[in-house]
Amino acid sequence: MSSNRRFLLVKRPNGDPRPDDFKLVSTPIPEPDKGSFVIRNHYISLDPAQRGWMDDAPSYLPPIPLGDAVRATTVGRVHSSANPDFTPGDWVVGLNAVEDYSVVAPGGFTNRIDISHVPSPSYFLSAMGAVGLTAYFGLLDKAKPQSGETVLVSGAAGAVGSMVGQIAKIKGCRTVGIAGGAAKCKRLIIDYRYDVAIDYQGKTMEALAAAIAKAAPDGVNIIFENVGGDILDAGLMSLAPSARIVLCGLIGEYNSAHGKVGARNIWQLIVKRATMHGFLISDYVSRFAEGATQIGQWISQGQLRIDEHIVDGIENAYPAFMMLFSGKNAGKLILKIT
Amino acid sequence: MSSNRRFLLVKRPNGDPRPDDFKLVSTPIPEPDKGSFVIRNHYISLDPAQRGWMDDAPSYLPPIPLGDAVRATTVGRVHSSANPDFTPGDWVVGLNAVEDYSVVAPGGFTNRIDISHVPSPSYFLSAMGAVGLTAYFGLLDKAKPQSGETVLVSGAAGAVGSMVGQIAKIKGCRTVGIAGGAAKCKRLIIDYRYDVAIDYQGKTMEALAAAIAKAAPDGVNIIFENVGGDILDAGLMSLAPSARIVLCGLIGEYNSAHGKVGARNIWQLIVKRATMHGFLISDYVSRFAEGATQIGQWISQGQLRIDEHIVDGIENAYPAFMMLFSGKNAGKLILKIT
Repeated sequence: MSSNRRFLLVKRPNGDPRPDDFKLVSTPIPEPDKGSFVIRNHYISLDPAQRGWMDDAPSYLPPIPLGDAVRATTVGRVHSSANPDFTPGDWVVGLNAVEDYSVVAPGGFTNRIDISHVPSPSYFLSAMGAVGLTAYFGLLDKAKPQSGETVLVSGAAGAVGSMVGQIAKIKGCRTVGIAGGAAKCKRLIIDYRYDVAIDYQGKTMEALAAAIAKAAPDGVNIIFENVGGDILDAGLMSLAPSARIVLCGLIGEYNSAHGKVGARNIWQLIVKRATMHGFLISDYVSRFAEGATQIGQWISQGQLRIDEHIVDGIENAYPAFMMLFSGKNAGKLILKIT
Repeated sequence: MSSNRRFLLVKRPNGDPRPDDFKLVSTPIPEPDKGSFVIRNHYISLDPAQRGWMDDAPSYLPPIPLGDAVRATTVGRVHSSANPDFTPGDWVVGLNAVEDYSVVAPGGFTNRIDISHVPSPSYFLSAMGAVGLTAYFGLLDKAKPQSGETVLVSGAAGAVGSMVGQIAKIKGCRTVGIAGGAAKCKRLIIDYRYDVAIDYQGKTMEALAAAIAKAAPDGVNIIFENVGGDILDAGLMSLAPSARIVLCGLIGEYNSAHGKVGARNIWQLIVKRATMHGFLISDYVSRFAEGATQIGQWISQGQLRIDEHIVDGIENAYPAFMMLFSGKNAGKLILKIT
């Protein structure tokens, strides 16, 4: 690799991102300034959160500047370093961008990782990364599931949802997963041990609410919400008293250019004295090691199945990213660049 | 009074309740069966919650049966009794109905009250009733305000909202109230000591959000929500990190026959790691005395202003009830029957 290919955001998407919102360019490989270092990226995480960063709207991170590479969590190796704490060859994970080489300024959010105990360095973007830790802390710390409770997960076959369902089973809960299509629903049962799988495709909000009510006759104690819109509205109709809702993502709403569906059934929060918690994994940085250790144990004990969907080549960044919204990926979506 | 006038629900309203959804009838005065007693009602509470009870939808109480009198909290005196715990002449408060006389079956939810320390028995429907206790426990127990925090209240001139604003001030908070029209906004400042009053009338959601952002430059730590729809959406755009939202009512949504507006900005719960608590005062029955005592102290110390809007005559039940939705009442709306 003699140049640095960079996947730039050149226009702010209106609704669904389009190919001409982005531009792949080749630039010289950067050199580290004093205190900084340069990473050669190998695995790039593609996540729904990136869609939010593309909008010019108030969020927990500033919008991606137009003309800059699309912000992403990456795993790679230190290529060159002017930082005494990082040596060429070190494996690291950090918030960088969709590009071959990233410069990490002094104080940047990048950590060295030990890849000797994982099947692939990409696990630091899935099981041990933000995805796995989101499932772990979002479910266990925010919703505090008790054995015997019913947990409803939307986006249940997705990277986060598939782990939430499995962790809920480990904790003795009954799990109901919502996903799109028969193939995914089959995976919910076989791969992720959900007790009930509900296919949302072709269902009105009312029909989906009826399916959830049937699957959870005593009500849903916990909703782990990744989708929003009709799917959240349907779940709200089956809350058990004192239910907890972890609002992790709203992928069904992110690309809406014509107004969001919104949550029209939040009156059920009053009726059931339920609580909805907005969740962001960045609040748990100080506990990442605790979560990653437990997740690693469950994997090694065969209790937790991790699926990754690896797409090769930075030139496929756009179609790969769009799989998140069509739901075509099977497992944590990762772009591999070599 | 030689007969029992009863305000019946005869049709389930579709959207705004209409006069012919109700019927005022005269029936004989009931006699108490063994263990029950009969109340002569004097003050009848008119509350947004009654609108919910008129729908055939899952809620915390069963729907009001068609042909039955409209359920309401009432204050009255025991008229006749076959229950040794209640003597004719006793003042009581309980969940009864819009009617001259109510029968309280054994085990019914009715309590004797001591009216010697209040300006009017109706205070057990306002300051010391569900309204005052909702403001007290909703704000203090669910949102746990800290001195110096900013509290945003919608329906701020209403029965609950006006007390929430004043209690927040007592606790050292900065208060921003939202109400409809210049007259109400003037009352927010003068009568209820709000720091800022925002008139929602004529404002789009975006304009309202901008007004809130200006009133709360460091963000809103607590939203006490009585209205919903655009007003909640606007408030969600100015949350401070770790904000708490007490969802007390959604009066802006209750009469919608053509689909609710919904909460389209709940993604801000994720961005700000905020929590939305559904609140219902019935969970706090065991602590009512604690709340009523404190509220009584604040009133006697001149720290808490209580406004009641009394409408005379059961024949005015329908137009009085509709004032809740047009916002025409100034203070806790109570129907007085003599």
